[in-house]
Amino acid sequence: MPLAPALLNLLHETFPVGALSIAEAERLAYAYDNSRLNALPDAVVFPTEHAQVEALVRACRAHGVPLVARGRGSNTTGATVPVQGGVVASFERMNRILRIDPDNRLAVVEPGVLNGDLQQALLPFGFFWPPDPTSAPWCSIGGNLACNSAGPRTVKYGSPRENTLGLRAVAGNGEGFRCGTYTSKGATGYDLTRLLIGSEGTLALITEATLKLTPKPSAVRTLRATYRDVGSAARAVARIMAQPVTPCALEFIDDVALKLAHDHGGDSVPLAGAMLMIEVDGEPATLDSAVDAVAAAARGDGLEELRVAQSAEETRALWAARKALSPAQRTISPNKINEDVVVPVSHLPALVDGIKQLSAKHDVLIVTFGHAGNGNLHVNLLPRDDAERARAHACLADVFALVISLEGTLSGEHGIGMVKRAFMPLALEASTLALMRNIKTAFDPDGILNPGKLLP
Amino acid sequence: MPLAPALLNLLHETFPVGALSIAEAERLAYAYDNSRLNALPDAVVFPTEHAQVEALVRACRAHGVPLVARGRGSNTTGATVPVQGGVVASFERMNRILRIDPDNRLAVVEPGVLNGDLQQALLPFGFFWPPDPTSAPWCSIGGNLACNSAGPRTVKYGSPRENTLGLRAVAGNGEGFRCGTYTSKGATGYDLTRLLIGSEGTLALITEATLKLTPKPSAVRTLRATYRDVGSAARAVARIMAQPVTPCALEFIDDVALKLAHDHGGDSVPLAGAMLMIEVDGEPATLDSAVDAVAAAARGDGLEELRVAQSAEETRALWAARKALSPAQRTISPNKINEDVVVPVSHLPALVDGIKQLSAKHDVLIVTFGHAGNGNLHVNLLPRDDAERARAHACLADVFALVISLEGTLSGEHGIGMVKRAFMPLALEASTLALMRNIKTAFDPDGILNPGKLLP
Repeated sequence: MPLAPALLNLLHETFPVGALSIAEAERLAYAYDNSRLNALPDAVVFPTEHAQVEALVRACRAHGVPLVARGRGSNTTGATVPVQGGVVASFERMNRILRIDPDNRLAVVEPGVLNGDLQQALLPFGFFWPPDPTSAPWCSIGGNLACNSAGPRTVKYGSPRENTLGLRAVAGNGEGFRCGTYTSKGATGYDLTRLLIGSEGTLALITEATLKLTPKPSAVRTLRATYRDVGSAARAVARIMAQPVTPCALEFIDDVALKLAHDHGGDSVPLAGAMLMIEVDGEPATLDSAVDAVAAAARGDGLEELRVAQSAEETRALWAARKALSPAQRTISPNKINEDVVVPVSHLPALVDGIKQLSAKHDVLIVTFGHAGNGNLHVNLLPRDDAERARAHACLADVFALVISLEGTLSGEHGIGMVKRAFMPLALEASTLALMRNIKTAFDPDGILNPGKLLP
Repeated sequence: MPLAPALLNLLHETFPVGALSIAEAERLAYAYDNSRLNALPDAVVFPTEHAQVEALVRACRAHGVPLVARGRGSNTTGATVPVQGGVVASFERMNRILRIDPDNRLAVVEPGVLNGDLQQALLPFGFFWPPDPTSAPWCSIGGNLACNSAGPRTVKYGSPRENTLGLRAVAGNGEGFRCGTYTSKGATGYDLTRLLIGSEGTLALITEATLKLTPKPSAVRTLRATYRDVGSAARAVARIMAQPVTPCALEFIDDVALKLAHDHGGDSVPLAGAMLMIEVDGEPATLDSAVDAVAAAARGDGLEELRVAQSAEETRALWAARKALSPAQRTISPNKINEDVVVPVSHLPALVDGIKQLSAKHDVLIVTFGHAGNGNLHVNLLPRDDAERARAHACLADVFALVISLEGTLSGEHGIGMVKRAFMPLALEASTLALMRNIKTAFDPDGILNPGKLLP
């Protein structure tokens, strides 16, 4: 449905030629994200200034037209698919690093800055921003914040919610505002910063972020441990997390995933019942004792082999299995269902065991791997045809029910978007959802921001 | 104003004898907090169960009566003073530690558990909960969460917002709800947990908290550095925070405070232009290099003496000045005005310099000390009589204006309560405050929870 001419006029007043498109080719390019879902927007705009975003939200609100903020569309949940049409605001051109301030351990960035570009810019200062999704080279900070996207390092350094000091944004009511601080501590009113992080563009459009930086440890050491079975590996995870040295990555890969990666990546990938990839970081003088502590915890019933990389070359070899995993899965199932459930670490053995049973019950191939130190596992269902796809969807409901029964939740880092919306009542009480809806109304009274996402 | 008989009846149905009081002696005991402000409530109740809190909120809402949640009243902002009368709910008897779960690095507690009691209970497991306000032995976790209270350790380990996984609570609309997770990572809907933390009982009453635990480092080392002047010390703070080893305490004490503490505490307290107390923690094998790194950063223009404690005895001696400070201030000014402004660390020199100028301009004694690693300074104005008190209040407005001009904010850890409400528009834009008011309405549509606090 084309936009009303009055709205288009308003948008033309706000966006110069080239920063607003209603051409079908461009609309098609912004119709989908990494969920492979898709829906055509009526227009695409490319803001570069906060004031444009205010004008944009006001214009859309005045016409009751949906507005969907988009980073780089690397999310897997359909969070940026404009299911109800309207305007997609792609922040890819609002991508300046405004300030790098090592003395105050902060950086101020526009939302379109790529995660990887920020990390590069921080390197000479000896700092990094901890959130490290796999898509870091091509995903934007704005998207990371919208989805509370994380990665392996979260186990030690936290997610965007723990690594953001303040935001500038435009609420769904059209009002620009700042929240949070430029300081590492603050108790001045409600925490709107964390409320926006993970809200998937349903409350406000972020136009600037003040990020908390962390000093980059100067050394890192990689360990690889293989186990007889997934239970032994899961129990090792719990032991590692119960001792004082927190690794900066603690990744789990199950037997099915190892087999896949081995078939695809070759003999450098071990075959085993399960594998842990562990990284510890710190200052060089501290690393030997850190490795010893983590290695001691990794040892235990079911351990088959524990290797510590002695060189960069060996480190690369140890990570080969993990790297081979994604392409290997795609060759089997281009339409894999990619979940990222999370349970308390001590319930990992029950989770991986339960998933094996569900895989057998529904006759669907499932590989399980991911950020075990947070109890956050990627449960990937790999249906190869339509019949398997139907079974996979039935299996998925059982997976979520299992996760909830283990005190877990639907998503550790991917978010809800479209694909997990229907499962929200499984994870959250009706009263909690009602409060979330009230908050939605508080920011976006007409419900124009990213309709059809997050809240059921 | 006595409560309506119908409301009293409802409360009697909910609270057994001894858990509800309208006796004046008891109401007087719950009329004030550590702000020394005071206002008499009409009744005091002592909930011990979540269901009682639901019934309580519903009853107060039905009768339009104010309801003020109270931990132990150790806050300094009047946050628990029932300025509009009504019911005070003291959580002191709802104080069970429900679960300590080291494998999952979490503890589940009721709000009345004392911070110090929790730390004691965690010790045998090798964990701690990082927030460490000075009042830790007698302040409650519920109060810590309500005010986002922190302490020296925050510089390395974060405030309650970074150390809480989930909450159970009752919103001002009378609905009980759970939010957050039992996992160290989550991306399932809006972050209500952080929204409640620091909301000072204006949105909901917390009835249970799932706290994130941190492994307790097995060793700690204390350093004391004295400087020629406050500027040199403030610049040392910025240098320390710009290098990779983050201390677990980085406390600043200015010359006026040192003089006071010296007069009160004796010769073990050094006289100097300013002093830093620095602690580093970690595993024993890592401490020497950590101390070296921090000491190197502490050295620089203006350093007079740097001492590293070699024993527990020496550590106690080094901390003597900091400990002597509070009693020393009280002897001078029983009505000290106790602020806790915060600025980016690199602006500390400008802050301490500006405060010296304001002290001279308004002719009011000001001592400045506190958590310099977070840029969070306690600015204590010490008026000795009524005339000085009037000047002190004028000075305070200038202090806040200075702080805002330095990209800082009103409070790092004390919160807003009654005493800083009027200054909120200085720190926050009108649009931000409007969103906070919308959120207040979303949780507490009739405005019964802690009226007259936080929002202007």
